[in-house]
Amino acid sequence: MADRNIRVHAADRVAVEDQEVEIVERKGIGHPDSICDGIAESVSRALADLYQDRVGQVLHYNTDETQLVAGSADTEYGGGEILEPIYILIVGRATKNYREVVHRDGERETKIRRLPVESTAVRAAKDYLNEILPELEVGTDVILDVKLGEGSGDLVNVFGDDEDESAGGEADAAGESDAAPEIPMANDTSFGVGHAPLTDLERIVKEAEGRLNGEYAADHPELGPDVKIMGKREGDNIDITVAAAMIDRHLDGLDDYRAAVEDVREFVASVADEHTDRTVSVDVNTADEFPEDGEPSIYLTTTGTSAEQGDDGSVGRGNRANGLITPNRPMSMEATSGKNPVNHIGKIYNLLSDEIAREVVAEVDGIRDLRIRVLSQIGRPIDQPHVAEADVVTEDGVALDEIQGEIREIIDRKLADVTSVTEAAIHGDITTF
Amino acid sequence: MADRNIRVHAADRVAVEDQEVEIVERKGIGHPDSICDGIAESVSRALADLYQDRVGQVLHYNTDETQLVAGSADTEYGGGEILEPIYILIVGRATKNYREVVHRDGERETKIRRLPVESTAVRAAKDYLNEILPELEVGTDVILDVKLGEGSGDLVNVFGDDEDESAGGEADAAGESDAAPEIPMANDTSFGVGHAPLTDLERIVKEAEGRLNGEYAADHPELGPDVKIMGKREGDNIDITVAAAMIDRHLDGLDDYRAAVEDVREFVASVADEHTDRTVSVDVNTADEFPEDGEPSIYLTTTGTSAEQGDDGSVGRGNRANGLITPNRPMSMEATSGKNPVNHIGKIYNLLSDEIAREVVAEVDGIRDLRIRVLSQIGRPIDQPHVAEADVVTEDGVALDEIQGEIREIIDRKLADVTSVTEAAIHGDITTF
Amino acid sequence: MADRNIRVHAADRVAVEDQEVEIVERKGIGHPDSICDGIAESVSRALADLYQDRVGQVLHYNTDETQLVAGSADTEYGGGEILEPIYILIVGRATKNYREVVHRDGERETKIRRLPVESTAVRAAKDYLNEILPELEVGTDVILDVKLGEGSGDLVNVFGDDEDESAGGEADAAGESDAAPEIPMANDTSFGVGHAPLTDLERIVKEAEGRLNGEYAADHPELGPDVKIMGKREGDNIDITVAAAMIDRHLDGLDDYRAAVEDVREFVASVADEHTDRTVSVDVNTADEFPEDGEPSIYLTTTGTSAEQGDDGSVGRGNRANGLITPNRPMSMEATSGKNPVNHIGKIYNLLSDEIAREVVAEVDGIRDLRIRVLSQIGRPIDQPHVAEADVVTEDGVALDEIQGEIREIIDRKLADVTSVTEAAIHGDITTF
Amino acid sequence: MADRNIRVHAADRVAVEDQEVEIVERKGIGHPDSICDGIAESVSRALADLYQDRVGQVLHYNTDETQLVAGSADTEYGGGEILEPIYILIVGRATKNYREVVHRDGERETKIRRLPVESTAVRAAKDYLNEILPELEVGTDVILDVKLGEGSGDLVNVFGDDEDESAGGEADAAGESDAAPEIPMANDTSFGVGHAPLTDLERIVKEAEGRLNGEYAADHPELGPDVKIMGKREGDNIDITVAAAMIDRHLDGLDDYRAAVEDVREFVASVADEHTDRTVSVDVNTADEFPEDGEPSIYLTTTGTSAEQGDDGSVGRGNRANGLITPNRPMSMEATSGKNPVNHIGKIYNLLSDEIAREVVAEVDGIRDLRIRVLSQIGRPIDQPHVAEADVVTEDGVALDEIQGEIREIIDRKLADVTSVTEAAIHGDITTF
Repeated sequence: MADRNIRVHAADRVAVEDQEVEIVERKGIGHPDSICDGIAESVSRALADLYQDRVGQVLHYNTDETQLVAGSADTEYGGGEILEPIYILIVGRATKNYREVVHRDGERETKIRRLPVESTAVRAAKDYLNEILPELEVGTDVILDVKLGEGSGDLVNVFGDDEDESAGGEADAAGESDAAPEIPMANDTSFGVGHAPLTDLERIVKEAEGRLNGEYAADHPELGPDVKIMGKREGDNIDITVAAAMIDRHLDGLDDYRAAVEDVREFVASVADEHTDRTVSVDVNTADEFPEDGEPSIYLTTTGTSAEQGDDGSVGRGNRANGLITPNRPMSMEATSGKNPVNHIGKIYNLLSDEIAREVVAEVDGIRDLRIRVLSQIGRPIDQPHVAEADVVTEDGVALDEIQGEIREIIDRKLADVTSVTEAAIHGDITTF
Repeated sequence: MADRNIRVHAADRVAVEDQEVEIVERKGIGHPDSICDGIAESVSRALADLYQDRVGQVLHYNTDETQLVAGSADTEYGGGEILEPIYILIVGRATKNYREVVHRDGERETKIRRLPVESTAVRAAKDYLNEILPELEVGTDVILDVKLGEGSGDLVNVFGDDEDESAGGEADAAGESDAAPEIPMANDTSFGVGHAPLTDLERIVKEAEGRLNGEYAADHPELGPDVKIMGKREGDNIDITVAAAMIDRHLDGLDDYRAAVEDVREFVASVADEHTDRTVSVDVNTADEFPEDGEPSIYLTTTGTSAEQGDDGSVGRGNRANGLITPNRPMSMEATSGKNPVNHIGKIYNLLSDEIAREVVAEVDGIRDLRIRVLSQIGRPIDQPHVAEADVVTEDGVALDEIQGEIREIIDRKLADVTSVTEAAIHGDITTF
Repeated sequence: MADRNIRVHAADRVAVEDQEVEIVERKGIGHPDSICDGIAESVSRALADLYQDRVGQVLHYNTDETQLVAGSADTEYGGGEILEPIYILIVGRATKNYREVVHRDGERETKIRRLPVESTAVRAAKDYLNEILPELEVGTDVILDVKLGEGSGDLVNVFGDDEDESAGGEADAAGESDAAPEIPMANDTSFGVGHAPLTDLERIVKEAEGRLNGEYAADHPELGPDVKIMGKREGDNIDITVAAAMIDRHLDGLDDYRAAVEDVREFVASVADEHTDRTVSVDVNTADEFPEDGEPSIYLTTTGTSAEQGDDGSVGRGNRANGLITPNRPMSMEATSGKNPVNHIGKIYNLLSDEIAREVVAEVDGIRDLRIRVLSQIGRPIDQPHVAEADVVTEDGVALDEIQGEIREIIDRKLADVTSVTEAAIHGDITTF
Repeated sequence: MADRNIRVHAADRVAVEDQEVEIVERKGIGHPDSICDGIAESVSRALADLYQDRVGQVLHYNTDETQLVAGSADTEYGGGEILEPIYILIVGRATKNYREVVHRDGERETKIRRLPVESTAVRAAKDYLNEILPELEVGTDVILDVKLGEGSGDLVNVFGDDEDESAGGEADAAGESDAAPEIPMANDTSFGVGHAPLTDLERIVKEAEGRLNGEYAADHPELGPDVKIMGKREGDNIDITVAAAMIDRHLDGLDDYRAAVEDVREFVASVADEHTDRTVSVDVNTADEFPEDGEPSIYLTTTGTSAEQGDDGSVGRGNRANGLITPNRPMSMEATSGKNPVNHIGKIYNLLSDEIAREVVAEVDGIRDLRIRVLSQIGRPIDQPHVAEADVVTEDGVALDEIQGEIREIIDRKLADVTSVTEAAIHGDITTF
């Protein structure tokens, strides 16, 4: 096997942490775009499981499209109601049929078998929604619909139980033998990008959302999962703007609402304090209006997501694979969520680059800012990218050549183990948005 | 009030019971067309409740259209699976907004209020499906979708709480005062038709389905609710053909299936015996094929309805308002299920005619066959039909003029009480298919 | 071949023409239910053509479900506009794949071929709509959607070109050889019913709609195709009620509208005069309201159909196979439109019964009222029904036994030629609604 | 008016042109994602026109979501066919009703008026598809569906014709007077980013697609509009990879196809030569496979887009506002296409930043790489951003302070004129993808 084309070079830029203006955003798990990302990835995992379970191998699919059409709701302190259900259309391609080949008494018999891809997709989406948006009842508050086409290509042969072969079907797909974990070929020219370490601002934004939707929400049922956090840093001044959907059922009135907003503000401020020494100001629900005369206009919901009232969503429009939108850093436009983790090179390299960056920074001292970029080469095994490059800003006093070898070695090791990214994605051990 | 135009005359035909050939059919509650009928009527009832609850009066709506698109399934003894979900589209018109008028400090304030008609419709459909098809999971095995348009016409004013009026909104709809139960005007030329008593064949067909889906299914979980019964009588020979969807999860194999089919046959035969002295033969699942070589083709399902695999359905295509399809009798083409029971004259007169017929036969002796037909007159109160006519075949030895007065009196009484049909429909005390 | 079971007997009822009260209705071609019937039948014909063209034989399909969801429109003299498009969902089952078997160099090769059933269905529906509703633009005023599932069953083998066989695929479907026009087997217990001659009232209703939508509309572009005619006869008094959708683009104002309504009234009255000596009164658009103060409420449309504003529709809810709704006569609930004319026995027998009745009355003198009923027998060839019966009311002075033989002979001849009904349906030489 | 917060500073990075590795991509107008972008923007423009035309002002809307579900096709030299239509769902929010206020005889009368937003949206999409994909027939090859919800908020008052006011309604929206072009307030924290000049690689990629879909396609009908171009530069070596959908109707066979592919290659190579002195290699349809035994797998289509067969698409997943995907440059995740250009600050600032960057570079000499970033400030007029910053890499020998003033002046001028971006977007004078 040829040496991998790995380049490690000094960055011709300053670290993002040291740039004058920095912007970071995260759409929380209940945001309409994130709902779609989450559904798409859940569907992807469920299909991968289905194929492995039934056929012994992940067949062709791609489910990186989900369209959410907002519903409408009538909120009211103490509990409002959904007027029109949210409509979610799961879209993609998935192999629905395969040709089972059985040898019986020396005869080769074939039979076309169907796979429950639609019902598997819908069930995965329902389970996911139940988990992240327990206030929403699937089938009434949300209509889940599905349109999965079948890709082109002939039927795959799958060998079934017979005298000659052991149990468990195994697909006879193009270019793949029955032997140990094969390295798939890259089927597209694509790239992935990852960064580490996170800046103060990135950590604040990411962690604030995570903890709001974790420990905080556990104690504060009035906070819905649709939390959107925008961070802006100018020099050493950090502004955090939070849009937090409050749930009417858990609030008694406007005072209660305002107290809930203030609680979120304080919580986020305290999270921020843990991550930076810079000056931080936090604003929550800045679009609220309290006119002297007339009804206040506030961010109140019945189910905890703006999808209930007017905010549509789709896949790949929000967070990148590392959970953040970071205009100060190169980003891939690729929608990572929902793609097939076995052969979609954009997904694999984005997840891999992120993992490499984090691992390098964890193991190697002296790195202030690291960008990993991996480019595929059509038709070559995916552990042999066209190039994998590390763009490094070292800490003051650290020379790149002191750590270059170490970095290269980690990249090489991670590339050799590229299929573990696929496994992690299938098992849900890795997040994609 | 003018006298009602009621005519009672002798039939110039023989009783259906005495005709040479008679055909009767009933599609059971799990048949795709019946599923649609049932959903449409459930949605109708839920909307009527909603309007009464929120506005104090049933606003304009009509939900007599539901389209079911069959899914696909892979059956297997012990438990198969749904491959593609069934898709059900609830269609109709329903008032979504009203203008609430409140008098505050002598000022008239108006506000447009929205009503949760879509979510109410979907919830009603879901509840109904859960009740009749417990094996089907709504949201995964079945996708429930909804398209309810709003009819034309200006917004209705609804008077809300204020100093001058008591609680409970009340609509200011055209032509209706706030006083006691008004008789609505007929808004269409339409008619209803009803018959009594049921013939032997009709009773067998209706009761067999009812008891199969009742006491029998309670003891025989392998029987699904999609039971279709076709009855044919030639002279004194009755043939009953049953198509009964069996549920794979409760069957161990082909022998089990055949035993289940035979059980149904025996049960239906015993029901038939209770209702006739004629010769009865019963066949179940006659379309089954058991070729010498090759797979048997049987009526096996995963969920108990043929909607899971290839049988689409819609409203108004199956049973008439009395639960039967009776080509020997005049029938209305009107889809009774789903229509607004307050002002849809076709629905009201069909239900009313059926009720009149049954009541007359229950109270008046000597009737062998009775047909009631009620014709509306556009623009007149619905208790003043254009004509209500009774077409009577008397028992041998009974002269029509002995009972004519009694019949007329019952018809008159029932017409006077026509709004009780509306109430019964709203409360679900009356079946429509 | 056994003799056919044909019975001809005297009716134990009076002719419909002589009954005291008669009701007849026809929904014109532009009525939402008729639009659905017409689309379903057009799709059926197009699929039958497709299969014959590609495979040499009509494969399994059934497209007797189409759901129309009304749009909304804003009418205005001189030309209004559609606000929300009408939505039409074509639903059914159709074989999408077949297995082509070619013998090449003595080897048997098979290949799965796909058929454009969805695009064929949508195109057929579009062409049909363009024909009957030229004011509607498909794709903007009307959204045509399609959900065609595939029935169960194994793939059909179709033999392609090779050395041994002549051009033109031919399907190797179960139970069918390659030989001349086979008589299919009845696959269900079903029946068809037909009547002749039409009564005065039936002829008036049917012809009035036909000529309004023909010669009259040609000269009166303001009349839309959604014409619904209700006829009622009491003794010798006939009331015809017409609901006629007027098209705003061709009208200058209310006076113009009223003149157009009056024109329709006069035309229908003149048609009626041609068909009866009874007293006829005609009313058009009786639901119109012209309040002293306030806007008139009239039947004005932008496109000529009530589907543009609030009237939903579906298949099989309107006219029976003979184009009429006739509660005085036995009717089949079967939706004739859209069904497969090769093997759907309900469709075939309804069309056949109607044809037999008309032919008998055309050829045999002395019949005042004839009802033909044909019952299928599962598993027997469709030219061998369980029973075909003629129920005859003779003219005064005619004895049934004078004409019984003739009637029987015609029935026998038509049954022998049953497949010509299939052909006529495929070629569109026969109407179904 | 306070001075605008404009900062011009030297970049702490090297120009993209001078970076070692550069990646650029453009999805052509026929790519599924671009189709969605184009539809969304067409719908947006049509709605803006509608509102201006009817109400004198652009009301609230947002149509930045369109979901394309791929169809399936059966290609064949000389002309294949669509099997399943492409399904496109237009999604968004749009104001459908307004309250018209007319003063008549001193009395204030109000009436709720409806706007044809759905039919306007569908028509705009249809027209757009007809323009860019003439081989596709809307309504048969493509099903266009629409789900536009209405945002929350009370009805807007629009003043109609009366004695006191001139013709042309004018909306009485919150915060807006009847006076001259108002500067809207920013309603969100968002930012836009723009770059100039384009690098060699960017110009090649952008121009190659533009000219392939322009002059080249005019002469080469076999080339479909779904052209995707990926450019990669390592040092001075440029690789251009083109995926070009060929149209079967215009090709006679495989040789023809290969010649067509070679023609595209040569054309792109010649375009590239016009834009760079670097070494360029061009590959077209690299995923094609020509196995020794077996069918070739090539990029052949019936309609010129991969949407016909398996490639789904949605808005905002492809090109950024400048028509390119440029991972070497900061990008906004905002979907520019389909957003309301009057008040969606992300759209406005992205388009504005791009325009500023181009204009600065056109007017000011000595700039090697310029990045413009504009940040909004919630609640302030959009011509007063929180900050507008220029990040400048000067040409060798040019000092930033020589040109700083000029740059600042252009930025200030363009900000003052920010509403012209809105106008340009509404008129379609500006591209968004």
